Amino acid sequence: MADNRFPTSVYSSRVHRAADLAAAAGLDALFIAPGPDLQYFTGSRASTFERLTTLVIPASGHPHVVVPRMELAALRTSALGEMQVDLRDWVDGDDPYALALEGVGELRRFGVSDALPALHIVPLTARAGVPPELATPVLRELRMIKDEDEIEALRRAGAAIDRVHARVGEWLVAGRTEREVAEDIAESIVAEGHTAPEFIIVGSGPNGADPHHEVSDRVIETGDVVVVDIGGPVEPGYNSDSTRTYCVGAVPDDVSESYEALRRAQQAAVDAVRPGATAEQIDAAARDALTAAGLGEYFIHRTGHGIGLSVHEEPYIMVGNSEELRPGMTFSVEPGVYFPGKWGARIEDIVVVTADGCEPLNKRPHELAEV
Amino acid sequence: MADNRFPTSVYSSRVHRAADLAAAAGLDALFIAPGPDLQYFTGSRASTFERLTTLVIPASGHPHVVVPRMELAALRTSALGEMQVDLRDWVDGDDPYALALEGVGELRRFGVSDALPALHIVPLTARAGVPPELATPVLRELRMIKDEDEIEALRRAGAAIDRVHARVGEWLVAGRTEREVAEDIAESIVAEGHTAPEFIIVGSGPNGADPHHEVSDRVIETGDVVVVDIGGPVEPGYNSDSTRTYCVGAVPDDVSESYEALRRAQQAAVDAVRPGATAEQIDAAARDALTAAGLGEYFIHRTGHGIGLSVHEEPYIMVGNSEELRPGMTFSVEPGVYFPGKWGARIEDIVVVTADGCEPLNKRPHELAEV
Repeated sequence: MADNRFPTSVYSSRVHRAADLAAAAGLDALFIAPGPDLQYFTGSRASTFERLTTLVIPASGHPHVVVPRMELAALRTSALGEMQVDLRDWVDGDDPYALALEGVGELRRFGVSDALPALHIVPLTARAGVPPELATPVLRELRMIKDEDEIEALRRAGAAIDRVHARVGEWLVAGRTEREVAEDIAESIVAEGHTAPEFIIVGSGPNGADPHHEVSDRVIETGDVVVVDIGGPVEPGYNSDSTRTYCVGAVPDDVSESYEALRRAQQAAVDAVRPGATAEQIDAAARDALTAAGLGEYFIHRTGHGIGLSVHEEPYIMVGNSEELRPGMTFSVEPGVYFPGKWGARIEDIVVVTADGCEPLNKRPHELAEV
Repeated sequence: MADNRFPTSVYSSRVHRAADLAAAAGLDALFIAPGPDLQYFTGSRASTFERLTTLVIPASGHPHVVVPRMELAALRTSALGEMQVDLRDWVDGDDPYALALEGVGELRRFGVSDALPALHIVPLTARAGVPPELATPVLRELRMIKDEDEIEALRRAGAAIDRVHARVGEWLVAGRTEREVAEDIAESIVAEGHTAPEFIIVGSGPNGADPHHEVSDRVIETGDVVVVDIGGPVEPGYNSDSTRTYCVGAVPDDVSESYEALRRAQQAAVDAVRPGATAEQIDAAARDALTAAGLGEYFIHRTGHGIGLSVHEEPYIMVGNSEELRPGMTFSVEPGVYFPGKWGARIEDIVVVTADGCEPLNKRPHELAEV
């Protein structure tokens, strides 16, 4: 079955731009591993690990793909079947690294995609004779700025996950376990148009204080504050990711006060998003607002992450990232506060940078929802 | 929630042995990435990608773990919470690579686990000043030879997936789609004791000719040959993986003849398994039998792969692998034949090498099952 994807010309144009950007960066070739990067360039959802599959984009000359013969048929159903890209298949006993380097010429500098594992980097480096650099500077330029088709896919994803959040109150009932709630959410994520539930966090009571808690068999109690962070891909592979925090029953006063500070911090960060602002300025907007409210120490993660074919990608909205925002960038704005052993809260929307600000792709209310 | 795992002493002992093996291999330190390797050493199922988490095992001196602060609580629920391992957490703005190298001393040679991605290898290499080697030679020695607890977990996994195969005939009915059959199988995989369905291949008719086909909406027809390749982990994380081939209705004569050759080839490979035989000899036993039957060209993949915490791991049963088999190794024996556009068949059992041969962990009949 062919992967859902954009027209082939979209992928060809991306590969050409990557070659130009590689040349401009002084890299003689790029080696792209399966995963979101390969999907970005070809539409392929190949996910091989131990057998080398790689798209090789030379700064000049024709690109080619090295692929285990048994993966060849699947790869042809991607845009690669129609692109001007040489397919070089291999079987056990061949040297796929030599095949990857064949015809590329002497490599003085080369780039590898983030996900290429040590398993392949070490033998590739041995044959190339020079150590790899990250292809990130090239790939981020491409993947970070979404075109209108990509933004439209992310809008669909955002609307789909909003419809799931709209129903969370039906399932989040005292006496049920986090896992039972998560099962209802999982079903709804698919029913609302996602390919699959990619991640589901239902962090009730003290579990909400761990930002990376997923789900447990903890029984939800009246009075619990519950963090619900959910998302997944819609075709052709673009992800939703949205968090809302709920309260089972009436909101206690102390929770209400901290939550309101969080709500203002999230809004301050969203309001700061515009072309020319830096990623770390957005992070600072949220962090400063929480610090001013005396809650800075309870905000223990970065403010956001880019999103697209990957749930987490460039640009990271964090201290030390001086990347200037540009129209077409899409990322989460998701400050949180975490009180170990007690409760936690987070508010997360995806936004797309526009000419003069940003468009939030999640539109559910930000208030702590009593359910 | 704590991960299910073996007693802490099991993990401590594995880390000590890794340090000894690193020293013997001339490596000053090993850097272990999240995934099955980290799980092997700590029981942790951490799966961070873009933020560095790594277990650093120096050839001499105390091991330590570098971990993002937000992952620290989860990591403490693994055996690491009770092991003599230093936990070094970091937040955005810190240099986790410097933290990883701190106190390790000068690195003349160091090893990284297979899964460590370029994203972390490139900055780690820049700070270390020497390129990494694969830690595989050290890790394979440990992970390839299963102890009795691990073998018992794999036995449970094998019996569980056998119970699923025993029921496939109920679901594999003409008029249903591959996807519908796969949904029944997925439910049964969990019902029979797996944590989750890790992979499900239902390759009917021509789809069976692609060894990496998963499932599609193709409607199964009377007369179809159907490859069913399924598996998943049982606690504490050890995988099943077994393939049987079914025929919907009476088996056509030409299919019967080729299938019988495949059955003999699979048996020949299993019969060849014993301590001292090499991995490539097992591959050759299957391949030679198929070649003798005129079917060599239709067997387009390796004969098998090791299995344990990973579905695919060392030892790979393939041409060029002269690794000698030893008691406690566990791997699949799964030759197949693939006729493009027509049909395919594969028979797969997991075996464990014993003192004088092997013990198959899958016990379902090998005949082409008419359903």
